[in-house]
Amino acid sequence: MIKVTVWNEFQHEKESAEVRAVYPNGIHNAIADFLRSDEIEVRTATLDDPECGLTEEVLKDTDVLIWWGHIAHDRVPDEVVARVRTQILTGMGLIVLHSGHHSKIFRSMMGTSCNLSWREDGDLERIWTINPAHPIAKGVGRYFEIEGVETYAEPFGIPEPDEVVFMGWYEGGEVFRSGCTFHRENGRIFYFQPGHETFPIFYHETVQTIIRNAVEWAAPVLRTPGLKCPNVKKVHKTCKD
Amino acid sequence: MIKVTVWNEFQHEKESAEVRAVYPNGIHNAIADFLRSDEIEVRTATLDDPECGLTEEVLKDTDVLIWWGHIAHDRVPDEVVARVRTQILTGMGLIVLHSGHHSKIFRSMMGTSCNLSWREDGDLERIWTINPAHPIAKGVGRYFEIEGVETYAEPFGIPEPDEVVFMGWYEGGEVFRSGCTFHRENGRIFYFQPGHETFPIFYHETVQTIIRNAVEWAAPVLRTPGLKCPNVKKVHKTCKD
Amino acid sequence: MIKVTVWNEFQHEKESAEVRAVYPNGIHNAIADFLRSDEIEVRTATLDDPECGLTEEVLKDTDVLIWWGHIAHDRVPDEVVARVRTQILTGMGLIVLHSGHHSKIFRSMMGTSCNLSWREDGDLERIWTINPAHPIAKGVGRYFEIEGVETYAEPFGIPEPDEVVFMGWYEGGEVFRSGCTFHRENGRIFYFQPGHETFPIFYHETVQTIIRNAVEWAAPVLRTPGLKCPNVKKVHKTCKD
Amino acid sequence: MIKVTVWNEFQHEKESAEVRAVYPNGIHNAIADFLRSDEIEVRTATLDDPECGLTEEVLKDTDVLIWWGHIAHDRVPDEVVARVRTQILTGMGLIVLHSGHHSKIFRSMMGTSCNLSWREDGDLERIWTINPAHPIAKGVGRYFEIEGVETYAEPFGIPEPDEVVFMGWYEGGEVFRSGCTFHRENGRIFYFQPGHETFPIFYHETVQTIIRNAVEWAAPVLRTPGLKCPNVKKVHKTCKD
Repeated sequence: MIKVTVWNEFQHEKESAEVRAVYPNGIHNAIADFLRSDEIEVRTATLDDPECGLTEEVLKDTDVLIWWGHIAHDRVPDEVVARVRTQILTGMGLIVLHSGHHSKIFRSMMGTSCNLSWREDGDLERIWTINPAHPIAKGVGRYFEIEGVETYAEPFGIPEPDEVVFMGWYEGGEVFRSGCTFHRENGRIFYFQPGHETFPIFYHETVQTIIRNAVEWAAPVLRTPGLKCPNVKKVHKTCKD
Repeated sequence: MIKVTVWNEFQHEKESAEVRAVYPNGIHNAIADFLRSDEIEVRTATLDDPECGLTEEVLKDTDVLIWWGHIAHDRVPDEVVARVRTQILTGMGLIVLHSGHHSKIFRSMMGTSCNLSWREDGDLERIWTINPAHPIAKGVGRYFEIEGVETYAEPFGIPEPDEVVFMGWYEGGEVFRSGCTFHRENGRIFYFQPGHETFPIFYHETVQTIIRNAVEWAAPVLRTPGLKCPNVKKVHKTCKD
Repeated sequence: MIKVTVWNEFQHEKESAEVRAVYPNGIHNAIADFLRSDEIEVRTATLDDPECGLTEEVLKDTDVLIWWGHIAHDRVPDEVVARVRTQILTGMGLIVLHSGHHSKIFRSMMGTSCNLSWREDGDLERIWTINPAHPIAKGVGRYFEIEGVETYAEPFGIPEPDEVVFMGWYEGGEVFRSGCTFHRENGRIFYFQPGHETFPIFYHETVQTIIRNAVEWAAPVLRTPGLKCPNVKKVHKTCKD
Repeated sequence: MIKVTVWNEFQHEKESAEVRAVYPNGIHNAIADFLRSDEIEVRTATLDDPECGLTEEVLKDTDVLIWWGHIAHDRVPDEVVARVRTQILTGMGLIVLHSGHHSKIFRSMMGTSCNLSWREDGDLERIWTINPAHPIAKGVGRYFEIEGVETYAEPFGIPEPDEVVFMGWYEGGEVFRSGCTFHRENGRIFYFQPGHETFPIFYHETVQTIIRNAVEWAAPVLRTPGLKCPNVKKVHKTCKD
C-alpha cells in the first residue's frame, strides 16, 4: 500500500467560477479520485489547512507527496517547506505538477530558478515518450495529445535531469522537457508539465496513467533517518608489512 | 590552431544531380569552407580515399573529426572505425552530423542502436537552445529556424546525454534532441541533427556558428596515450600504529 | 518470477586446481546456487556450450544475464555478442562481474576501453555504500569488507555512470567505482567489481545480497521489440499562416 | 583576465593561535597569493566585512567566487546568500572548499543536506584523478598525496555530480568524492574536499594547481541577465484544418 498526500494550494477554485466549473471539488480531489485504489491510499491537504496540512506526522506517514500550486507559492511558510524537504531527503517521493515548478519546495530541491516562458492560448500539446523503458512511461504510447493546454517553453531553469522521460511539442512552436526525474539523497522527484487550472487535464486518461506510474516510481525503496554529519572514529588500523 | 578533419561519405554528390546542385563540391567542402580561419585548419577525407582518408597519421594530427555519412555506413571498414575510436578515447573530438547517427563510429561510441523515426517532407524546424550557458550555444538566440529539413523524431536510441544543448520542434508534430554532448574517456562528442544532403542546411548561418562552436568545444584539453590496463605495484605500505 | 541466466567463461576452473578448490562446480554454479529462490529461476551457460549457451531462444527467455569472464573474452564470437546486445536494448538486464569489465559485451555497451589498473596482492577491500537509497544497496550497511581481493584502481575507462552505488577502498592505497549503473535503451546494466576466481568472494553474504538486489533492479519493467528506424507519415497537418 | 573573489569566513584565524600559525594572513590571503597572476585578478572578502564583502557590485564584477567557511555558516545573512545565488545562475563560477560543504550557499545550490562523516586524525589522503581528461585535472598525475588531512567519508549528501574528477582515499579506511562538478543554469560549481584550517593544505603545490585549473574552468563563457519567467506571444501561426 502506497500512501499518497495530494497537496493543492486550493485558491483558484475558491475564487473563480471558471476554475470551479472544471474542478468543483478542487484539483486535489480530482487527483485523489483517480489515484485511490487497492494499492494507493490517498489523503489531501491544502494551503488553508493548519500548517498547510503538512505536519511532521502527516509527512512521515506519506510515501509520495503530490504538489500543485500557482498563485500563492509565497504563502507557504518556510518552515513547512523545510519540513517537506527534510522528509524528501529521507525518502518521501515528490511529484510536482505544472505551475508547481515555481513552488518553494521545487526550487529549493533544484537549486535553480525553475523559470520558463509561458503563454495561455489553449494550444494542442503532443507529448512524446522519449524514454519508453522508464517505469513512468509504462502503458503510454509513442506520444499522446492534450487538446488545450497552457504552453511552457524552454529554456527551463533546472539542473540537467537524471532522466528526461517526456518531451512536449506545442502547436504554436515551443518544446519543453515535460517529464523529468531527479534524485535528491533518498528522495525521488518527478516534475510533470501538464495540468493547468482552467483545462480539464487531470481527467485525461494518459495523464492519470502517468501520475499513477509516477507514484509507484517515487515511492521509497527505503525510508531512512536521513544523513547526519557525525564525527566518526577511525576504523582501520592494520598494516601488512 | 585547431586541426579539423571533415569526413564525408561523398556518395550522394557523385550519384545525384539534385544533391550536386546543393553541394557542388561535396558536403565536406561546404563545411570546410566555413570553418577555415586563422584559428581552424581544415583537411577533408572521404570514403573513396585510400583507408577512407583516415590513416593513423591523419587521425593523430586531427583535433576534431567531423562525420557525415548516410547510405554507405557499412562500407567503412571495421579497422578504420577501430582506429577512429582509439583516437577519440585519447582526446580527439568527434562531431556527428545528421544521418551520421547511424554511422558505425557513432553507434560504437554510444553502445546503442541510435535508431529514430524520420520523414522527408521539408518541414520547418525550429531549434531551441535549452542550455544557453553551453559554449556550443554561444551567439545562438533563444531559438532559430531552418526552412525545409528532414524530420527526425523521438525516441532517439542513445544513452542519456551528458548535456542536451538544443531541442528541435518540427511543424509536423515531432520533437528531437537536436544537439547532445557525450564524453567518452578523453574524447568529447557532439551530435547535431540538422544537415540533410538535399537541403542547403550547411549554408545556414546559425548552423555554421554551432558547428564552429562545437569544434572549439570538442578540441582536446589534453591528448593522451589513452588508458591502458597495467599490472601495478602496491604503493602504500605505511601504517601508523 | 525473474529468469536469470548466469554466464561463466568456465575456463579457470577446468585448468587450475587452485581455482577448482574455491569453485568446484564453476563460478556460474556458485552464483546460481545463492540466487535460486521462489522469486528467481536460474539457468547457466558457458563458453564451451554450443553458441556459448546463448541462443536467441535462451536470451529472449532471460530477464537478467549475469556475466563472468576473464581469460577468454576474445573467444566469444562477435555474433553472440551482437545477439546479447540486441536483447539488452529490448530490456534484458545485464550484470557484469569483476574481470567481465573487459568482456566484449561490456565494452560494446560502454563505447570505451573499460581499462583500469590492477594488482593481485589479496588486499582487504572495504566497499562503501555511497548511494544508500539505491535498490541495489538495500540491506547493505554503510560499508562492508572483503578480506583478500584483486585490487582494481582508477581511472576506470567508462562513461560517467548514471549512478555510482558503491566505492571501493583498498588497503594498498587505491580507490575504485565498485558498483555502477548504466541505462542503454530499455536495458539496465550493473557493473560490480568484486569477484576474482581465486578468492571465495561469491560466498560472501553481502556480495550475494548485492547481486540478488541487482537482479531485481535490472529485471525489465517492459520488454519491447526494440527501437526501429522507420520512415513515418506526417501526423500533424499544419499550415503556415 | 579572470576576476576572482576569495571569500573566507575568517574566524578561526582570529581566535586560534594554532590556525594563525598556519595561515597568518588568513586562508583567503593564502589562496589569493597563489592565484594572483597575469591572467587572474584577485580580491578577498570576509564575514566581518560590511555585507560580508559581497555587495551586488562586487559579485557582478566577479567571474569566480571561492568559498571557505566552517564555524559561522549561520552568520551569513540569507540575503547575501540569495544575492550570491542569483549571480551564480547568471554565470558566476563557484568553488567551494572543504568545510564549505555545509555553507548556506552550497546547500542551497545542491538542494540536499551535503552531510558527510568526518574525523580529525591527520590521516594521509591519496587523491586519485578519475577523470584525467577534465580541464581541472590538467597537470595532476594519476594520484597525489597530502600528509595530514581531516578525513571526510561517504555517503556525501549531494545530487549525483555532473562529473567526479577526483576521489580521495584515506589511510584510516574511508573514501570520498573529493572533486565534483555541478552546473546550475549558467553557473559552474566545483566542490573540492582538501583544505582544513589547521593543516597547511593550501600551500600544497598540486592543490594550488587544481584550484587554479578550477578557476579557469568555472569562469563564465557567457554572463547573462539570468532566466526570467515571461509571458510570451505565440510565434508560430498553425492551423488545424
